[in-house]
Amino acid sequence: MSEDKKGPTDRRSLLKLIGAVAGGAVMYQAMDAMGLTAQSNFTGPISLTGDPKGASVLVLGAGWGGMVAAYELGKAGYKVQLLEYNDRTGGRNWTLYGGDTYTELGGITQHVQFDQGHYLNPGPWRIPHHHRGILHYASMLNVPLEPFCQTNYAAYVHSDEAFGGKPKRYREMQADFNGYIAETLAKATSQNKLDHPVTQQDKETLLQAMKEWGALDKNYEYKKGLMTSGRRGYDKPPGGGLDSEPIPSEPMAMQELFNSGLWRSIMAANQYEHQNMMFQPVGGMGQIGKAFGRKLGNVVQYNSKVTKIQQDDKGVTVTYVDAKTGGAPREAHADWCVCNIPASVLSQIPINVSAPMKRAIDVLHYSPNIKIGLQFKRRFWEQDEAIYGGISYTDQINTLIGYPNYNFGSTGPGVILGAYTGGQNAYYLSALSPEDRIKVALDCGARIHPQYKKEFQTGVSVAFHRVPWMLGSSPSWTDELRAEHFNNLCQIDGRIVMVGAHVSWMPGWQEGAILSSLDAIKRLHKRVLSA
Amino acid sequence: MSEDKKGPTDRRSLLKLIGAVAGGAVMYQAMDAMGLTAQSNFTGPISLTGDPKGASVLVLGAGWGGMVAAYELGKAGYKVQLLEYNDRTGGRNWTLYGGDTYTELGGITQHVQFDQGHYLNPGPWRIPHHHRGILHYASMLNVPLEPFCQTNYAAYVHSDEAFGGKPKRYREMQADFNGYIAETLAKATSQNKLDHPVTQQDKETLLQAMKEWGALDKNYEYKKGLMTSGRRGYDKPPGGGLDSEPIPSEPMAMQELFNSGLWRSIMAANQYEHQNMMFQPVGGMGQIGKAFGRKLGNVVQYNSKVTKIQQDDKGVTVTYVDAKTGGAPREAHADWCVCNIPASVLSQIPINVSAPMKRAIDVLHYSPNIKIGLQFKRRFWEQDEAIYGGISYTDQINTLIGYPNYNFGSTGPGVILGAYTGGQNAYYLSALSPEDRIKVALDCGARIHPQYKKEFQTGVSVAFHRVPWMLGSSPSWTDELRAEHFNNLCQIDGRIVMVGAHVSWMPGWQEGAILSSLDAIKRLHKRVLSA
Repeated sequence: MSEDKKGPTDRRSLLKLIGAVAGGAVMYQAMDAMGLTAQSNFTGPISLTGDPKGASVLVLGAGWGGMVAAYELGKAGYKVQLLEYNDRTGGRNWTLYGGDTYTELGGITQHVQFDQGHYLNPGPWRIPHHHRGILHYASMLNVPLEPFCQTNYAAYVHSDEAFGGKPKRYREMQADFNGYIAETLAKATSQNKLDHPVTQQDKETLLQAMKEWGALDKNYEYKKGLMTSGRRGYDKPPGGGLDSEPIPSEPMAMQELFNSGLWRSIMAANQYEHQNMMFQPVGGMGQIGKAFGRKLGNVVQYNSKVTKIQQDDKGVTVTYVDAKTGGAPREAHADWCVCNIPASVLSQIPINVSAPMKRAIDVLHYSPNIKIGLQFKRRFWEQDEAIYGGISYTDQINTLIGYPNYNFGSTGPGVILGAYTGGQNAYYLSALSPEDRIKVALDCGARIHPQYKKEFQTGVSVAFHRVPWMLGSSPSWTDELRAEHFNNLCQIDGRIVMVGAHVSWMPGWQEGAILSSLDAIKRLHKRVLSA
Repeated sequence: MSEDKKGPTDRRSLLKLIGAVAGGAVMYQAMDAMGLTAQSNFTGPISLTGDPKGASVLVLGAGWGGMVAAYELGKAGYKVQLLEYNDRTGGRNWTLYGGDTYTELGGITQHVQFDQGHYLNPGPWRIPHHHRGILHYASMLNVPLEPFCQTNYAAYVHSDEAFGGKPKRYREMQADFNGYIAETLAKATSQNKLDHPVTQQDKETLLQAMKEWGALDKNYEYKKGLMTSGRRGYDKPPGGGLDSEPIPSEPMAMQELFNSGLWRSIMAANQYEHQNMMFQPVGGMGQIGKAFGRKLGNVVQYNSKVTKIQQDDKGVTVTYVDAKTGGAPREAHADWCVCNIPASVLSQIPINVSAPMKRAIDVLHYSPNIKIGLQFKRRFWEQDEAIYGGISYTDQINTLIGYPNYNFGSTGPGVILGAYTGGQNAYYLSALSPEDRIKVALDCGARIHPQYKKEFQTGVSVAFHRVPWMLGSSPSWTDELRAEHFNNLCQIDGRIVMVGAHVSWMPGWQEGAILSSLDAIKRLHKRVLSA
């Protein structure tokens, strides 16, 4: 059977075999040899075969790590109980709608007043196409997905310090950046100033590439004209009928462009995790967490705040109280524990794990972030500016403006992500009252969209470092911390194993939590069967 | 009132005023001064005020130009009759579904056998976000739109002559192309070989830009590692739990990359007309044309093949026959005629217009093209390869493979655009039988997707140069032809005015036809009122 005639099923079986016999690294080499670049570590739905013989598992936290563990272990025959702090499943997979109430650390409560059908995702808002784990569970739960627009050439890049504070369209910045690089490199090439292209043919190929990619003219220059406007946009675009000739636009000055630093904003789309296609669940990211909750049914015990985790050689005992009413502590007991509580919270809870694991939990710092959602009377960004979805970037404190990727073209209101920022910006904003946070977001946004102030209706803000059950956004793993602590955090420690985005190489993504959970329960199941 | 406080309505009124007083060019300068880059020549719904006093108009051809003219003139009080060759409205705005039948020039008939809910758009398939005219009419007609994915980083670029015929992912080509350009330019910069950056600060800014944009290491080199894999993808992507460390992938060799010519394929998305966001109507492009037909009602006379167009100083007489049954010629008469028949067809119909207009009609060559739609049992491109929508490019005769931008993640079949090509490729393919066209498309596609042959179910092909009512795809305006003939084609010639994509600066886009029609009826209306 020739290579050409091998169907994907044959390939997959072969890869599985290679994986089983020779381990992961060889399998990946084999995949590459077959021309299949690896897209994900999710290798299809997990299959936990073998009878756990009535073993019980206590899962703590109904974020992705906990939901996946509870579901898959339950399916494999374990007795599962899942304790969740909130009155819903999903964790950071969470959407705020009109009518919702959110109380942050310190007691400030916000009442969300968005119109029906509009929302803010305080946590994750986009799903990369190569995150096959979350795509699998969304499909399993029948949660429909729709495209998420990461890159919009009509959106803006903006700095108060550049171009007199006037925003530029993404397409202008991208075209001019490419054009000037191409022109500069073409000049050096044609003047034989490069070490690289050794042959005359190489040189000509490079020149041709620069010309086509940069929209250079026959002299290899990036100049105002119909060719460059065919990338950066026109002063007057091509039309129909008489007087419909396009009028080209003037490129930015090269020096001003590079000094602006705004070219940084056109790079986000090239990051592996941000590359088209991206998806979002219809109706908000939290639709998946909600659907998973329905699937799990009464396995989940809501409003359960864990206060102590103790293990011995017979099992694990977890103490918890009612998160809303307090009251007398209760105890839950099981043979094993899968702990999906973020390290930021877990480090404050008494737990008897080994010193290396405890140290790994305690050493992790979680980064701050804040999102501010703003509802406007009308979708002026679409109607006035032809911006349908995507993101504008600014060097102001709000960092970006995310336009809704749903209800395109509708005549009613729309909810914008008016700020999404981390670091000092996040601390600064979260130290303000909710009203003042919105005021700042409106001030920033109005420099890009003057329509902001006239059209604003209502807003809400969530800072994850002030979310009581998270106390931070993502764990800030450094290379040094990883080298010392990551594997310690992954171990099955007696009868306890950690899951969650922090137990992964992609702590800012839902997929990390899912993959960590699949890895942990696979190892746990093996341990149980061999016990 | 300060600039900052001006709402969009104020701006728009001001611009309208400037436009009315000083003409288009000044208005566009004013828009630019306000920081509003022009997005479209569509300036909002047309308003034809003034009583045409019972004037009648005969519209020929129910493509975009004809539909818009018939609708807007009817609304303005004209007596309108629209003669259409087909049994449907829309022209090239057209979708083929299972159960449809299509007969091309020469009599070959294809019976479309796609499953329900799947389709091929033989003509236009995407709508740019700045094509405000078509967006307006889609909205008016309540035809829902959904995102069209132009760029997919998971899709392939492929050449039989490069990389041993192995397809590369778009993300690999893009990352390596950018990386090597950045590295080469950074080297020349740091060796002070450029004329351009005059100051030390300029030089450092350029170096920094190259480093960030190209994912270069601290030595300004583009090398295998986690940083470059964060753009081009991994051999093993980051995972969760133990053994989840990512394994970086190896960049292509620079020389092989440039010599491959495959970098050409990563540029399409930078073209003004292809820039994200793009849209498609839910259910196929033809949904708009159909909806417009319902709106126009019995204004449209279907199956009417125009055979002669004659005018005198009193009006226009059009002779036509039943396009299906032939029979005795009939005549229609009106005061004015808006002619939306493509020049390729019109040049074969007797018409008494001025010599310059007749010459403009006759001189226009229409380019050939062909599309081939292929239905497969399952969406292997999604399931096996994580390609959700977008386009793969190849140097084979099929030129590209377009993946469906609807029903993402569904488990049933899917229809791929298996070929979309022009020039000699189109003539070569259309000269084959429909079965052989599909065979060629399958052969080409199987070199990129080995699953093709096992999963194929049914296909259909449409070559516009063999579509009886088009005789070509888009008119091939050259600069020289435009300079000599375009304005002659736009004139109101006695009582006849031409509309259609060929009467625009964007002959390959529906928007061109719409804008040409709006321009023509505006002038016609003025002429009628002043008559």
